[in-house]
Amino acid sequence: MSENEPNLPARVAAAIDHTLLTANAERSAIEQLCHEALDARFAAVCVNPTWVTYCRDLLDKKVAVATVIGFPLGATDQASKADEARRAITNGADELDVVINIGRFISGDIDVVVAELDAIATLGTPFKVIIECAYLDDDQKRAAARAAIAAGAAFVKTSTGFAPSGATVADVALLHEIAHPAAAVKASGGIRDAATALAMLDAGATRLGTSASMTILDELTER
Amino acid sequence: MSENEPNLPARVAAAIDHTLLTANAERSAIEQLCHEALDARFAAVCVNPTWVTYCRDLLDKKVAVATVIGFPLGATDQASKADEARRAITNGADELDVVINIGRFISGDIDVVVAELDAIATLGTPFKVIIECAYLDDDQKRAAARAAIAAGAAFVKTSTGFAPSGATVADVALLHEIAHPAAAVKASGGIRDAATALAMLDAGATRLGTSASMTILDELTER
Repeated sequence: MSENEPNLPARVAAAIDHTLLTANAERSAIEQLCHEALDARFAAVCVNPTWVTYCRDLLDKKVAVATVIGFPLGATDQASKADEARRAITNGADELDVVINIGRFISGDIDVVVAELDAIATLGTPFKVIIECAYLDDDQKRAAARAAIAAGAAFVKTSTGFAPSGATVADVALLHEIAHPAAAVKASGGIRDAATALAMLDAGATRLGTSASMTILDELTER
Repeated sequence: MSENEPNLPARVAAAIDHTLLTANAERSAIEQLCHEALDARFAAVCVNPTWVTYCRDLLDKKVAVATVIGFPLGATDQASKADEARRAITNGADELDVVINIGRFISGDIDVVVAELDAIATLGTPFKVIIECAYLDDDQKRAAARAAIAAGAAFVKTSTGFAPSGATVADVALLHEIAHPAAAVKASGGIRDAATALAMLDAGATRLGTSASMTILDELTER
């Protein structure tokens, strides 16, 4: 993506999941998020499940509603994650950002991780799989990405934003190498300025999860 | 609680929920947690839902299994929280630590908070209600505590440990004033040494959630 192309802000906006996942996000902040997403034509808003119906009504299919499942620890039980996803879809979610069961994955219980993702896949709604790179070594990242892709994930996503570190250019490149072209890569966690956003896109991400979307767009417009 | 009483370590241990809620907690760490809880006679272990059955089998009713619901953001949808609780009980949980829907509470949607807690209460298992003091002013803390007690909570709990701040002596005293004697107070978040643990107990807490339990016991024993 050339940094000098005239429609760069619009192209970056179209790759952004405009995100607000803090526990204390109020209705007024969620409303503002939706209005900003409509104005800027972001790919989606990304909100906690409790706000899905509210966002669906405000966005009226003009911007997608993404929500998070098993978020941010990924450590709910297997059946609860599938049920949470089913309800989110009923409530109006267009995309699901699902956290893998990190503790089980690291403990070698791959069957749990695969079963959870397979259950989500049967629901038929596009899903992104958050592998939480901060807790994995490179081999584990590759194995988690492969499990996500085998389950039919639309995106492999780097981070929840709640771990000690977020997206890195190296992780995005690693995931892109594994995923492309079967699945896409979403970079998230710590993307707070235009330079970082562009670096993630250059490394192969096609979706960015960020709460700093308006700052990023402002910086791109001022270039 | 006198700091010089000879059985102080045992009395403090009996008030501790020995806690491991990190996303990347491995099976071996959960196993160690359970063995420590058995040895020290902690009140409970507190683990994510994915580990409940494993802990139940290891602890064999000698130490209680507490798990977390809607944790740590409290922002899953209403029905999912009740379902998660139901599954946790089926899997062997003896106590539930439930996060209120903080965003909805702050937004004035008290009906959502009350409905969630009422649904949990019908399950008949003792539950603690985490009001996440970090995000509330004192009037909101009192109102949230009153809602928890009205729903039948066994404990009002200060914090998840995932917010910008954890338990404070002032918050424990405030909650104790509202809750006593209808419900008890659990202090959690940032309790990492014996001095802090004793201060929380002195302020009215009868349960402490901490990952530093072994450090706290060592400090008390060395006095």
